[in-house]
Amino acid sequence: MTNLLDTGIRNARNVDRYIFGQGAIGELADIINLRRNTQKDQVVFLIDEYFEVCPSIVDQLPFEANDQLYYVSTQDEPTTFSVDKLTDEVMSNGDGDVCAIVGMGGGSVLDTAKALSNLLTNGGCASDYQGWDLVKVPGVFKIGIPTISGTGAEATRTCVMTNKESGLKLGMNSDHTVFDQLILDPGLTVTVPRTQYFFSGMDAWIHCIEALSGSYRNPVGDAFSTQAIDLCRDVFGDGNMRSDRNRAKLMVASYLGGCAIATSYVGVVHPFSAGLSVVLGLHHCEANCIAMMAMESFYPKEYREFIKFVEMNEINIRSGVCEGLSDSQFNTLFQSTIVHEKPLTNALGDEFRTVLTESRVRELFERM
Amino acid sequence: MTNLLDTGIRNARNVDRYIFGQGAIGELADIINLRRNTQKDQVVFLIDEYFEVCPSIVDQLPFEANDQLYYVSTQDEPTTFSVDKLTDEVMSNGDGDVCAIVGMGGGSVLDTAKALSNLLTNGGCASDYQGWDLVKVPGVFKIGIPTISGTGAEATRTCVMTNKESGLKLGMNSDHTVFDQLILDPGLTVTVPRTQYFFSGMDAWIHCIEALSGSYRNPVGDAFSTQAIDLCRDVFGDGNMRSDRNRAKLMVASYLGGCAIATSYVGVVHPFSAGLSVVLGLHHCEANCIAMMAMESFYPKEYREFIKFVEMNEINIRSGVCEGLSDSQFNTLFQSTIVHEKPLTNALGDEFRTVLTESRVRELFERM
Repeated sequence: MTNLLDTGIRNARNVDRYIFGQGAIGELADIINLRRNTQKDQVVFLIDEYFEVCPSIVDQLPFEANDQLYYVSTQDEPTTFSVDKLTDEVMSNGDGDVCAIVGMGGGSVLDTAKALSNLLTNGGCASDYQGWDLVKVPGVFKIGIPTISGTGAEATRTCVMTNKESGLKLGMNSDHTVFDQLILDPGLTVTVPRTQYFFSGMDAWIHCIEALSGSYRNPVGDAFSTQAIDLCRDVFGDGNMRSDRNRAKLMVASYLGGCAIATSYVGVVHPFSAGLSVVLGLHHCEANCIAMMAMESFYPKEYREFIKFVEMNEINIRSGVCEGLSDSQFNTLFQSTIVHEKPLTNALGDEFRTVLTESRVRELFERM
Repeated sequence: MTNLLDTGIRNARNVDRYIFGQGAIGELADIINLRRNTQKDQVVFLIDEYFEVCPSIVDQLPFEANDQLYYVSTQDEPTTFSVDKLTDEVMSNGDGDVCAIVGMGGGSVLDTAKALSNLLTNGGCASDYQGWDLVKVPGVFKIGIPTISGTGAEATRTCVMTNKESGLKLGMNSDHTVFDQLILDPGLTVTVPRTQYFFSGMDAWIHCIEALSGSYRNPVGDAFSTQAIDLCRDVFGDGNMRSDRNRAKLMVASYLGGCAIATSYVGVVHPFSAGLSVVLGLHHCEANCIAMMAMESFYPKEYREFIKFVEMNEINIRSGVCEGLSDSQFNTLFQSTIVHEKPLTNALGDEFRTVLTESRVRELFERM
């Protein structure tokens, strides 16, 4: 169990550039045009399928005749299979002339854009790069445009994909995975349904409360987490979480939460949430909230604040999601949770397995 | 006066990478070695002269035989002349083989490193690039290692230089001015004298309170400023501002304060401080504190907090610095203050000249 928590010295990689503001999406054309040249002039747009029926948004995007446009389904979160399939499609539809990738959507779309960018220049398939620092060369220039706030995918050095063969939910953790450019336009989150808005926003809050409760701490991560939490508190304790002002604040909280991840670890919630995603296919942000409902013993103060947010914003968190699962499924849930050694060590210490026995883990899942 | 305050949409450029932590300086060798190659293997070290007599620090730096080492005097803040002179020296001592510049020191040394980096690849002289976005091509790879916290120079896109011919104190505001790598090691600030520690730390606090009091605001800048202020409050309201924990916090506050500057403007304090620097040659951070003592009418709440910090940490702020100046000198002070239209508009609106008349400005300087 040594070296699971390192010294706190790690070279954090920032997103190169970000534009923030209502209407910032209007800057996309200029940014893209700086990338187009006579050798490489094709842009790949990955857009959340949600926007396929939103001409007001899509019509203002700067498509050129040679560009590729994909509406990305977010029914399921990215898998190594879905990423490989998309990469093949992009390569067969393009002619190696891709100068930029635009990912516009939630965490799934942003992560897909990051993975595609790496694969187009590194070759191979997605599972080759699941892990730490396996990506060899920079990807294609990539622009992230979040349309929902909370995951922090816009700021992180990973792109989470489920590998259905290995059962592992793991990203390409690499400096090369970080976006070259972000466009943070709170105007784009105006149509997010309220429940989804809450679930995603809580992702930022949850990973920051996990980080601040852990034993692996440093003043940079703490500062980003503290500020993200304060902003979330403003947003979800306000009574009108989706006001213009609060949507702007939540977009900042998401970005800062992503920056916090770079220098900190999550705790108990995310491993349980990952279990729910792997076994039951639940989406990450909803799974976090479902897991949080069983976390009172680990995070008592934060649990109470979470309940306050849920009640104040009249959110219905599904319960009984593990009802009727077989012993074998519970065992898979256990394995998919306990595999996350770094965050669990961060939260519970080296001996986390003595706390999180199989029966205790099952009992917690049964409460969800 | 139009367009002085823009729309809030600007493409902010982050520092590429940062390492934070006690002992992080030990990572410098690895970072430099990644840059050295057979064509270009020379590193230029610019080190605050303060460390010339600190073998414990300097001896651990990874010098190679071909490298250039300069101890930078911080008696005076950088001028276009001092930067040009250094650039000539580096070019005549080197053979165009510089692969990296290391700037280790306070704001003056960091700014000098940034300016040198730009000049080595862009040619010309420093004054050619004083202004906005005049630097054409990326500079030499540059590493910033702050040894005192507060100015935010480690995070900003400028490098302030006084041009003694034009009287203008203005930097090379450019994305190319941003550091490629930071090493943020709180161990390096352990020897900073307490008064200087206070003055520099207050620079972060002051530019953040100015930003939050201005009319040009956005949620990203606000978040960075708020967190930097909270950290400063922890540090300077603690009774032991230089404890290990507080030095680490102040280093984070400085970095976040620098990030805040990227998306916000300062207010009334900095223009007055700039006047003091240009006319009396006072260093920026001390000049800020001297100016702050006359700012009660503009920032009443913040003024009271500042006085509390001063008293709690038993700092002596010089007074009477403008005593005995001639009318002509007061006029120069006025001109050097009022020229800063953007921050003054941010603080006082388009009509700031009706508030800051020459007699009012003189009266304020006379109080300092």
